[in-house]
Amino acid sequence: MAKSPTVEDVALAAGVSRQTVSNVLNTPAVVKASTRERVENAISQLGYRRSAAARQLRTRRSSTIGIHLDPYAGGISGVVLDRFVHALTERAGDRGMRIQLYAARTPTDEIERMRELADGGEIDAVVITGTFHGDPRTQWLLAHEVPFVSFGRPWGEDDVASPAHLWVDVDGASGTAAATRHALAHAGSHVAFLGWPTGSGTGDDRERGWRDALAAEGLRMPRVAVDEGVGRARAAVADLIASDDRIDAIVCASDSLAIGAHLATTAAGRAELPIYGFDNTPAVEALGISSVEQLPEKVASGVLDLLMGPTGRVVVPREASANAAHVLVEPRLVVR
Amino acid sequence: MAKSPTVEDVALAAGVSRQTVSNVLNTPAVVKASTRERVENAISQLGYRRSAAARQLRTRRSSTIGIHLDPYAGGISGVVLDRFVHALTERAGDRGMRIQLYAARTPTDEIERMRELADGGEIDAVVITGTFHGDPRTQWLLAHEVPFVSFGRPWGEDDVASPAHLWVDVDGASGTAAATRHALAHAGSHVAFLGWPTGSGTGDDRERGWRDALAAEGLRMPRVAVDEGVGRARAAVADLIASDDRIDAIVCASDSLAIGAHLATTAAGRAELPIYGFDNTPAVEALGISSVEQLPEKVASGVLDLLMGPTGRVVVPREASANAAHVLVEPRLVVR
Repeated sequence: MAKSPTVEDVALAAGVSRQTVSNVLNTPAVVKASTRERVENAISQLGYRRSAAARQLRTRRSSTIGIHLDPYAGGISGVVLDRFVHALTERAGDRGMRIQLYAARTPTDEIERMRELADGGEIDAVVITGTFHGDPRTQWLLAHEVPFVSFGRPWGEDDVASPAHLWVDVDGASGTAAATRHALAHAGSHVAFLGWPTGSGTGDDRERGWRDALAAEGLRMPRVAVDEGVGRARAAVADLIASDDRIDAIVCASDSLAIGAHLATTAAGRAELPIYGFDNTPAVEALGISSVEQLPEKVASGVLDLLMGPTGRVVVPREASANAAHVLVEPRLVVR
Repeated sequence: MAKSPTVEDVALAAGVSRQTVSNVLNTPAVVKASTRERVENAISQLGYRRSAAARQLRTRRSSTIGIHLDPYAGGISGVVLDRFVHALTERAGDRGMRIQLYAARTPTDEIERMRELADGGEIDAVVITGTFHGDPRTQWLLAHEVPFVSFGRPWGEDDVASPAHLWVDVDGASGTAAATRHALAHAGSHVAFLGWPTGSGTGDDRERGWRDALAAEGLRMPRVAVDEGVGRARAAVADLIASDDRIDAIVCASDSLAIGAHLATTAAGRAELPIYGFDNTPAVEALGISSVEQLPEKVASGVLDLLMGPTGRVVVPREASANAAHVLVEPRLVVR
């Protein structure tokens, strides 16, 4: 890299001491006007720029937000988190903030990375994703007063409403309810649900939307649960439609499940049976399957709104006010 | 964030001046042994840690690599770049380097971001992706001596072999040649190619692999070209198989094109006709379509090998040696 001019170069060119240059930069009022002018001319002629490191030392702020990037594990829905990171990078840039990535394979690993970055003054705040019951990261962040926002609810009764835990999430139940109402209006009353085994916050939330939308019409249907995966979903739906020919539509907890359902109905000659996915990934778009779109760009804006607060500065958890502690993004049903 | 102890705190606790603490940290040999011990005790008792910003000012290195993240534009193949960023983050972490993201919508924008980050001392090097003929970013980086590696060839006769331009790329022609040879061995001699209009470095390279593999068997076939897109590919392949019933297999320049081809052959009752995609994305995996896998993890390792060099320090372009200026990664055909 071409060597940038230093404070020493400016001092030499202006014929003043290093300290005088520093005063012009930091406390110009203490410098005689004529000297200040000479230093400012030298700064402009040499093209001197203050380094980010120097600014960071002075302000004790790095203007950097850290975010964990999962080692890529394949799969269809990872694309939602990737879209979120893209949107966060762009919107953070608009607000003069940088995004720094770090990799970790376990929550313990992730806490170690956060500690290094926070202790080293390399980040002002972190964004965590994929929150789960009893998440140790949240507890560590709160205990160490590192500003953070999570994409994902705490999924714990104790801290959902805590003003110290800032979070943004997508209203999954609202998304599956919209899909279910669409199916009831256009296909018939036998709307099945293909979800994951009970126990995941996200999965239970999405199932609830379907159940509540049926209940609002006085309806009830059994659910089908499989672990995430196209092949497992395909087998389960093949069984389902073979054993019950009254099924009118299938609402799914994910796009992977929806693709499996689509392959099963197509193979059974029932390609017309409406399937609804969740995440609106490129794969379901290519196959013409309807899906609930999470709007990761809205999530990114929500995260930055919470993190920066109305002052435009990173908010320390205890300064956050209870009424602006979370954002629940309304997803959008994309019908194909 | 809990306030970290500063050099001043250490000086106060040890009963010495700030300068003495600084000497202990930076030039311990000049400090009397008993004083040094007192300061070291204070450092350890207070849990003082030198900040990254201070280290950065001292070493003039940020240990950070910048990479541009495209605003997410949807599409099936973006996942390859996302996998690359994931792998780069993880492998860079193993080498003590950070990854900083920046967003930009045009090459000019991207140059402006790179200038800010490099001038501010925030990054030591950048990784650029999606290189094209006459790429202004490469020219700017070379002119300003900012260390960089590109994922993607320069695609210009003048600098392909230049030791100053470090690049890693995937051998696209080798990937489509492998797919074509597999089709010739298992399906028949009429292997069609569905690609993009002539003129993109990547697309022409992938087409060449197919043409050369056919030529090696004394065969020739016409090619079909459409702009990237599932719908366009589907229409083109529907026409192709309707007008020529001897087609034995179709090698495609991308997974989007392959999905379109798959939908067309399935709709025409010719689901058995082998299709080969390029990128091995989750979508083709879900549909059971064969594809050429780019191995973005190998690309990430190659990028860091070139960037860090054998010394483990970021290499300035002019220090790079001609024989280690690029890495061409051999892709892998995944047959389904």
